[in-house]
Amino acid sequence: MANYIEPIARLINEFSKLPGVGNKTAQRYALNVLKMSNEQARQFAEAIVDAKEQVKFCSVCGNFTDSDPCTYCRTKNPAQICVVQEPKDVLAIERIGEYKGVYHVLHGVLNPMQGVGVNDIRLKELVQRLNGQVKEVIVATDATVEGEATAMYIAKLCKPLEIKVTRLAQGISIGSELQYADEVTLSMALRNRREL
Amino acid sequence: MANYIEPIARLINEFSKLPGVGNKTAQRYALNVLKMSNEQARQFAEAIVDAKEQVKFCSVCGNFTDSDPCTYCRTKNPAQICVVQEPKDVLAIERIGEYKGVYHVLHGVLNPMQGVGVNDIRLKELVQRLNGQVKEVIVATDATVEGEATAMYIAKLCKPLEIKVTRLAQGISIGSELQYADEVTLSMALRNRREL
Repeated sequence: MANYIEPIARLINEFSKLPGVGNKTAQRYALNVLKMSNEQARQFAEAIVDAKEQVKFCSVCGNFTDSDPCTYCRTKNPAQICVVQEPKDVLAIERIGEYKGVYHVLHGVLNPMQGVGVNDIRLKELVQRLNGQVKEVIVATDATVEGEATAMYIAKLCKPLEIKVTRLAQGISIGSELQYADEVTLSMALRNRREL
Repeated sequence: MANYIEPIARLINEFSKLPGVGNKTAQRYALNVLKMSNEQARQFAEAIVDAKEQVKFCSVCGNFTDSDPCTYCRTKNPAQICVVQEPKDVLAIERIGEYKGVYHVLHGVLNPMQGVGVNDIRLKELVQRLNGQVKEVIVATDATVEGEATAMYIAKLCKPLEIKVTRLAQGISIGSELQYADEVTLSMALRNRREL
């Protein structure tokens, strides 16, 4: 079978390692790189190396940072810790602009089926942060089976320390129609109804 | 609004320059790069620079090559020239493994609406190749309005030189059902019917 010459084939192979990128898409990306100017291609390559070299994880919260501890850990209220799965979840919460506390990024959730246990995510680091200063742990893991299980586990960890543990509310999405809500969500929304 | 730190934001920006990649997809790619090992990221960056530096266009046919003239120009039958729009079309034809002749890559098609004229694609280079050795020019531009117009133009160029000009057959795709064929294709297929 006919194939691209080696440098192109190698670039296609690199692009196809990205999530959700098949061979056709990787080809399109690679041919696009060939159309760039030398300067543009060099900038692209540099951005990859720079991101990898300059981005570290905060030793306290585990979020992306270029300084350690990160800006959030240095400037926000340490009495509240919001526990999330991934660094991108920190940004999602920062975007609403209301939360004043700090974060703790687990880098995963408990998932015994895939061999992710208690020591594979940053739970030990979370426990180490639970000193007298912490008043509340807000568990903001995804509303998946694994996210729920992880939330339960964290609640159990905090109980003996007498720290308040809360979970993000689950129910109907704002702007969505009741008829399209799935049964589990609807049942959860009914159970957690609140007085007006 | 909360944003990623500079090296990540820069990488996201670079990825979002790829065709069909929006901000969300670029984020996903960038976060994936951060999960790579340093070695993997370096390889990715190198593949980009290498492809850009090592890949040249063949001075004869205009296809991608790392040697000049390219392997096809050196080894295939120069009596037939297959004219295509883009280098990837060469690969598409090579994949069927039947064509013995050489290629000519136009790097575009005539498109007056977008300001692509006769001098913007490699038509002059094609005419220079049309010496006594060439017996047939097979026009394999896309079956679009621009591809057809370009095919007509090439036919006109070749006529005074008394070179046979052919066009890829147009009709019903193999394996497709008649009811789903569009009217233009069907009309073309009827007009170009052949005896069995």
